[in-house]
Amino acid sequence: MNTVGHLINGALVADAARVQNVYNPATGEATKQVALASAETVQAAIAAAQAAFPAWRDTPPIKRARVMFRFKQLLEENADKICALITDEHGKVLNDAMGELQRGIENVEYACCAPELLKGEHSKNVGPAIDSWSEFQALGVTAGITPFNFPCMVPLWMWPMAVVCGNTFVLKPSERDPSSTLFIAQLAQEAGLPPGVLNVVNGDKVAVDTLLSDPRVQAISFVGSTPIAEYIYATGCANGKRVQALGGAKNHAIVMPDADLDNAVSALMGAAYGSCGERCMAIPVVVAVGDETGDAVVARLKAELAKMKVGPGTDNGNDMGPLVTREHFNKVKGYVDLGADEGASLVVDGRGIKVPGHEAGYFLGGCLFDHVTPQMKIYRDEIFGPVLSVVRVESLQAAMDLIDAHEYGNGTCIFTRDGEAARYFTDNIKVGMVGVNVPLPVPVAYHSFGGWKRSLFGDLSAYGPDAVRFYTRRKTITQRWPSAGVREGAVFTFPSNR
Amino acid sequence: MNTVGHLINGALVADAARVQNVYNPATGEATKQVALASAETVQAAIAAAQAAFPAWRDTPPIKRARVMFRFKQLLEENADKICALITDEHGKVLNDAMGELQRGIENVEYACCAPELLKGEHSKNVGPAIDSWSEFQALGVTAGITPFNFPCMVPLWMWPMAVVCGNTFVLKPSERDPSSTLFIAQLAQEAGLPPGVLNVVNGDKVAVDTLLSDPRVQAISFVGSTPIAEYIYATGCANGKRVQALGGAKNHAIVMPDADLDNAVSALMGAAYGSCGERCMAIPVVVAVGDETGDAVVARLKAELAKMKVGPGTDNGNDMGPLVTREHFNKVKGYVDLGADEGASLVVDGRGIKVPGHEAGYFLGGCLFDHVTPQMKIYRDEIFGPVLSVVRVESLQAAMDLIDAHEYGNGTCIFTRDGEAARYFTDNIKVGMVGVNVPLPVPVAYHSFGGWKRSLFGDLSAYGPDAVRFYTRRKTITQRWPSAGVREGAVFTFPSNR
Amino acid sequence: MNTVGHLINGALVADAARVQNVYNPATGEATKQVALASAETVQAAIAAAQAAFPAWRDTPPIKRARVMFRFKQLLEENADKICALITDEHGKVLNDAMGELQRGIENVEYACCAPELLKGEHSKNVGPAIDSWSEFQALGVTAGITPFNFPCMVPLWMWPMAVVCGNTFVLKPSERDPSSTLFIAQLAQEAGLPPGVLNVVNGDKVAVDTLLSDPRVQAISFVGSTPIAEYIYATGCANGKRVQALGGAKNHAIVMPDADLDNAVSALMGAAYGSCGERCMAIPVVVAVGDETGDAVVARLKAELAKMKVGPGTDNGNDMGPLVTREHFNKVKGYVDLGADEGASLVVDGRGIKVPGHEAGYFLGGCLFDHVTPQMKIYRDEIFGPVLSVVRVESLQAAMDLIDAHEYGNGTCIFTRDGEAARYFTDNIKVGMVGVNVPLPVPVAYHSFGGWKRSLFGDLSAYGPDAVRFYTRRKTITQRWPSAGVREGAVFTFPSNR
Amino acid sequence: MNTVGHLINGALVADAARVQNVYNPATGEATKQVALASAETVQAAIAAAQAAFPAWRDTPPIKRARVMFRFKQLLEENADKICALITDEHGKVLNDAMGELQRGIENVEYACCAPELLKGEHSKNVGPAIDSWSEFQALGVTAGITPFNFPCMVPLWMWPMAVVCGNTFVLKPSERDPSSTLFIAQLAQEAGLPPGVLNVVNGDKVAVDTLLSDPRVQAISFVGSTPIAEYIYATGCANGKRVQALGGAKNHAIVMPDADLDNAVSALMGAAYGSCGERCMAIPVVVAVGDETGDAVVARLKAELAKMKVGPGTDNGNDMGPLVTREHFNKVKGYVDLGADEGASLVVDGRGIKVPGHEAGYFLGGCLFDHVTPQMKIYRDEIFGPVLSVVRVESLQAAMDLIDAHEYGNGTCIFTRDGEAARYFTDNIKVGMVGVNVPLPVPVAYHSFGGWKRSLFGDLSAYGPDAVRFYTRRKTITQRWPSAGVREGAVFTFPSNR
Repeated sequence: MNTVGHLINGALVADAARVQNVYNPATGEATKQVALASAETVQAAIAAAQAAFPAWRDTPPIKRARVMFRFKQLLEENADKICALITDEHGKVLNDAMGELQRGIENVEYACCAPELLKGEHSKNVGPAIDSWSEFQALGVTAGITPFNFPCMVPLWMWPMAVVCGNTFVLKPSERDPSSTLFIAQLAQEAGLPPGVLNVVNGDKVAVDTLLSDPRVQAISFVGSTPIAEYIYATGCANGKRVQALGGAKNHAIVMPDADLDNAVSALMGAAYGSCGERCMAIPVVVAVGDETGDAVVARLKAELAKMKVGPGTDNGNDMGPLVTREHFNKVKGYVDLGADEGASLVVDGRGIKVPGHEAGYFLGGCLFDHVTPQMKIYRDEIFGPVLSVVRVESLQAAMDLIDAHEYGNGTCIFTRDGEAARYFTDNIKVGMVGVNVPLPVPVAYHSFGGWKRSLFGDLSAYGPDAVRFYTRRKTITQRWPSAGVREGAVFTFPSNR
Repeated sequence: MNTVGHLINGALVADAARVQNVYNPATGEATKQVALASAETVQAAIAAAQAAFPAWRDTPPIKRARVMFRFKQLLEENADKICALITDEHGKVLNDAMGELQRGIENVEYACCAPELLKGEHSKNVGPAIDSWSEFQALGVTAGITPFNFPCMVPLWMWPMAVVCGNTFVLKPSERDPSSTLFIAQLAQEAGLPPGVLNVVNGDKVAVDTLLSDPRVQAISFVGSTPIAEYIYATGCANGKRVQALGGAKNHAIVMPDADLDNAVSALMGAAYGSCGERCMAIPVVVAVGDETGDAVVARLKAELAKMKVGPGTDNGNDMGPLVTREHFNKVKGYVDLGADEGASLVVDGRGIKVPGHEAGYFLGGCLFDHVTPQMKIYRDEIFGPVLSVVRVESLQAAMDLIDAHEYGNGTCIFTRDGEAARYFTDNIKVGMVGVNVPLPVPVAYHSFGGWKRSLFGDLSAYGPDAVRFYTRRKTITQRWPSAGVREGAVFTFPSNR
Repeated sequence: MNTVGHLINGALVADAARVQNVYNPATGEATKQVALASAETVQAAIAAAQAAFPAWRDTPPIKRARVMFRFKQLLEENADKICALITDEHGKVLNDAMGELQRGIENVEYACCAPELLKGEHSKNVGPAIDSWSEFQALGVTAGITPFNFPCMVPLWMWPMAVVCGNTFVLKPSERDPSSTLFIAQLAQEAGLPPGVLNVVNGDKVAVDTLLSDPRVQAISFVGSTPIAEYIYATGCANGKRVQALGGAKNHAIVMPDADLDNAVSALMGAAYGSCGERCMAIPVVVAVGDETGDAVVARLKAELAKMKVGPGTDNGNDMGPLVTREHFNKVKGYVDLGADEGASLVVDGRGIKVPGHEAGYFLGGCLFDHVTPQMKIYRDEIFGPVLSVVRVESLQAAMDLIDAHEYGNGTCIFTRDGEAARYFTDNIKVGMVGVNVPLPVPVAYHSFGGWKRSLFGDLSAYGPDAVRFYTRRKTITQRWPSAGVREGAVFTFPSNR
Repeated sequence: MNTVGHLINGALVADAARVQNVYNPATGEATKQVALASAETVQAAIAAAQAAFPAWRDTPPIKRARVMFRFKQLLEENADKICALITDEHGKVLNDAMGELQRGIENVEYACCAPELLKGEHSKNVGPAIDSWSEFQALGVTAGITPFNFPCMVPLWMWPMAVVCGNTFVLKPSERDPSSTLFIAQLAQEAGLPPGVLNVVNGDKVAVDTLLSDPRVQAISFVGSTPIAEYIYATGCANGKRVQALGGAKNHAIVMPDADLDNAVSALMGAAYGSCGERCMAIPVVVAVGDETGDAVVARLKAELAKMKVGPGTDNGNDMGPLVTREHFNKVKGYVDLGADEGASLVVDGRGIKVPGHEAGYFLGGCLFDHVTPQMKIYRDEIFGPVLSVVRVESLQAAMDLIDAHEYGNGTCIFTRDGEAARYFTDNIKVGMVGVNVPLPVPVAYHSFGGWKRSLFGDLSAYGPDAVRFYTRRKTITQRWPSAGVREGAVFTFPSNR
């Protein structure tokens, strides 16, 4: 079995004293191993990043951006290979992996605008003949810790922006599906990123804690669950670093009585079950305003679920692949068991699904609960599986109160035709990313990604304009020049006998 | 004796169960008492801010800005009274207080631009007929904790920007000189700030810890010493808040051989001894490049110090007033004693100064050390007094290495005529605010204030553009509208028999 | 009779060789005379502006802005006097004059943000150790030519932004109602504007042509009718100047079948008849989608018109005052005569109105035409009077085709509840300022004002961010410093024998 | 002989009723012919652009940008072919052509940022529950007219930005060297630009006048000589279009006594003689401050000229190729004859140069005049050839007065080490693009290019941020929604018997 190692200072490094299996979730087989970095290995990566920093921060932004132009091209040329690696280790359908990659490429495209994005503000005459301007200078060594569900996209949210801003980077991706992440980092090298500018260390808590405690690391970006996000934020900040830590979600979709139900249900199917619901922007809760709406939505979802195809992600004919690991499968299945116990109506039960030839895969069919209430654990917890709950309320305000009372505030959306409903909702809802007839309102790469409440710790969001500010330090220069000479013409005037 | 109380929900509140003396540092007399808020009082202020939030965040930004327009006018009309309060409790010379106030007013002027500053980014067609835009929404209750040395200016760095962004605010100013801060808050009420939008609580660690732990407080701005800044940052972040914490400084001025020495020395006198050196942007260290430069600078400083007038701040003929408290006087004097012990040359000794009629005041004359070395404690520590150290080095690079090796990175400056020296210095020095022939490079109000290294914890600087981002939460909306009807003309077309 | 003169270099100047009467339109009496400047007088104003330029462009932007802070205060303190002058010469109701003044003050508030607005873009390392930045420098002498309908607001669209950008200005206001404009300019002097920075010349085509041809005038802003706008644009550009020339309008309001009719009709009444329709953003055309909508709108408008009060503007109980001049009254009345001839249904005829005690005033009652068609002259021409035409169409697309076929493209609006209708309309309509349930979508002062098609000639709109770009010239500096010395340590290192 | 035709609606079109020879300036041979479009052909191109507009303006900006990403790649892959075409028809040395291409590619890179650049400003609550935002919408058909000296770069200044902003484009390049321009347009098609979005018509005044008069053309960008720029600006504006017209130049370099002369002279050689001085940013005038400086500069320039290699551009060992045409050669040579007559000292005479094997080529050696005065015609006129004039003055102020008195204000630079000299010069000089120790301060692609005085007609500069504003029309939307229903819960609440 191959072992997935680290990329440090431009070279692949084994450090395989400790390893862990990597599984194909469609078959349940261990297909590779991944090295788990020791503290020393992580420190070596940090040292490589530190050493690469001075030359890289002095490289003109346009030249840093040109590495991204070439990198985009390499990502497009290697798209099939990248997606195959994702599907092999994560399980999602190839088409879905391609969507993930495309979103990642969009962040690389944005990074190509570095010279524009790094412009500082210049003020003439802040006082008489005194000028002042701001520069946004690189921080030094920055780090990212990323989750299993988007092994390609989430790292690409972070390090392309970090490095075009002049920083160097140490990435610790998820150890469950490490191969595409590492391969992409190698493509960046091939595109011209100097050794040490981007380093990848695979690992577990040892690696994380080394990044959190090493004083050379200036900033940490994290995406994962809320308890870990809180730990990262508190620990990183206590160590004096800047930290942005994105956590969990429980995104609600409101369906209003005037919604276009065909559009809405079609959108909800993808948002709830795409990638098995293993997305921080997935929609696991539908809030139907009015019982008529609720009945109609549930009926249509049930009909759609009957048509949904579940099977290995390598077959693009499937709508949904397996869950990522055996443990996660058991956890999600446990929530379905619980929901029934809690009194929700299990309208569609995906627990018994069989995928011929893939009996050991971690497949769970789409599940649909109706009459879910806010007191139930299946409502409160982030399940991260193909389980959709329908809650029924009497008014838009009641739907919004429900959302605002939940601990998470990542994404949400409303289905309506009414301008006022949309404006009132988007203005007042305490959620960071809001869709109007858009089920997964993931901001495009030239905006920024961030939830509210316990979905994000820190003040700056991920990628987009906020990433520029996160990955740079403001320096303000105030300048005047003593005027002896020039205006008087004394110093610079030559002696003349005319 | 009067007791300075709190401003909560638009009303003055006593809560004088615990009090502390406020002294006139020019006479050593206790002239007032200040109430020290209990946790309950602070919670009442937070509750008032929480209650005032919904209406205030819905108030159009231009109307919030207009309160600032009126407030600016009231500050100007009440300038003499404000400055008298500052001098009475802090000790600085009236003219210097006026300078502080003017800087504070500049922040109010910037807050008047709220409608411009709060503009979000709008993107048409992020996909086919899909639009997306960002809003920068208010956070809710925000808080500020401010130091004794600028009782007027530092609070005005914080709350005007916080409130024009739609937040409400709880301010805990220094308990050593609380009166001008409170009076200014009352002027803001008079200018039209609704009750509860700005609250002031005087107090000590009890108040600070209540602000740090109350879950209703969304964000904390702090200015003070580095140990407290670290505590605030670690504790506030562990409680899930966004925090910006500005700490200590030890700002170096480099004097190059080609500098205009008359200008430089004149500038250094003000920067080193103005306000007794009790400024986070003061210059307590001069780095002379070359012994000739060093000799010339020391000789001129010595001559200038002989002319410097020390006395009560109420007399604008004085250059320097007393230190803020007896304890601080003793601490600063102790450093002068130590410097001599450590082997520095005490060129000018201000310890024996007498101010007739003010024998009990906390007056210390200007002190000048030459041949200070980086190993000395008087070099490493922030003394915050009228003590200037001259260090001598051989080159610009050596001077820069010295600065970069110091734990603080707040401000610095260079005196030179050479474009290349200035560019190399400003580009590479690891300090946040950099002057070229400008001794106190405090950014103007439309830029932002922030040091590097252990002078600032957090990613966003104080006031200016960064304050807008710090005091707002990004919300990104992605919107499409189902197209049934309009384009087809079915729904909106009336039945017609033509 | 008083003669309204000029303001040149800070002093009132008579130059009354040629004069013209100024009338009170509510009484028909000539109450003042206005001087008509000779070419020499205009040249004197230009010369004063030219002389004042160097010192003013070197004045720090924050100091220029502070003149605007004081000016805003003076405008507020003198509001009643200003409005009385407007009503006395223009005729509009005092409350309406107050609305005009308030809009003007908002432009002054925006001008207070000059230091923020004038920030240039700064790029470090456009090449190795090469920096580049943009400055937005003042042009020099700029000029404005403004119409009778907003004697206070339109000048305030122009010169406050021009002067805070560092320019000096020559204003030629309308000779029909010159007094408020001149008085406001005097307040600006009182606020601290140095002599010569703002000059006012009253006059006619002689003055206009002098401004157009004098090579010292760098830029011209114009608001008026389209034929004159075209003349100004062509002539000014042929003379090498930058020009923005805002012309006529014929703004359509679409009423959709799903509109909230009470709101819509209430909004339309003000938009059609406010200030006698003498506004470039007035709504003289309603496009009703569907006959049911048309019938309902006409019925409600008719009922509202029966309640509308017409009388002298000095009485705030009136809804509408007189037209501005006898000539204009005759012209508007002629259009009403013509409309009937062209076959439109004159639902409400305001021609016979009597205002007791003001029989010689230029009063015309509100007129309402139904079944107007695009072929009619009352549809095609800008009438600029209290005449509202209703056109009926079958679909939103037909309504939009109508608007797009008209030569003007200043403003428009739609009344609907439907998000898609609003989005499709605002995206595709060929009009510069678009309202959704907002009848007069005049952009706020921190956005910019500009029509499309033959309503605006030039590329930059009036006031707001575009005004900054219009009133400044870009200068881009690219800078590197020869590195001999500093890095090598040769030049700056002192000779040493250690 | 091949005939270079037009590119209309994605297809090559001959229209060779009128043709003109294209010469190889290194040999003097006619190698091709170029078609000169009739008015009908130009109208066909405009019609194609008009037809392509609706679909293209609705294409999401990111998709338009992606065409530019692919186009950049194709330009890089075809660089050698492009440069060969440039050298074959223009004469410049291949390396110099590569420099031109690289500058062009940088504009394409900037165009890749379209989604970022097109963001509008969004304001919440401009009034209670009223929002307003700006969109920057495409104009429609835009046009460009470009000069012979940069057949690749100047067109790439224009149309990539125009088309990513959503416009379609008609380009009329120089008829003297049309091939590279046309080939590049074909590469854009290959990159995915839909037919009709970019059209190229070769031609002469017939084509220009058709573009100027056709009402479908919304905007015109021009680069060429000042008399033609004035004609384009006056005529285009009189026809109601927006126009930016860049004209001639006479760029001065100031050499201060403290300049690093080795650097300065090396920089001046390239700036004066590179591309035979046929650049609008070339330096044809050196202003030496002081006779010592003047003597030293002239001596070094003379020595460098002795080493300069002149010959065919196909040999990268040459420093300078031939002039572009026989006519231009004669004109430039005539200026050298005149200079001697006018009394300037001809230090180096390049008139007699022989290039073996290329006797019929248009080669002129580098010429150097000393003691040139402002009264001489060789000083006043734009020669556009390898002729450098040295003027001597006594002070920086005198040098600046000279520059400010010249009719052109395109570029200028200063060589100095002194911060104050640089700041005083860059602040006050009346020139749009200013270098400090940078001889050709052409702004990078993410800034904008524009001269002052008679070097630019219009208010917006070429390429960079200004191009976004030039190629878009501002639309401002103000929106409120009637609130019936949602907040009250009436409309959206379902009937319930609970």
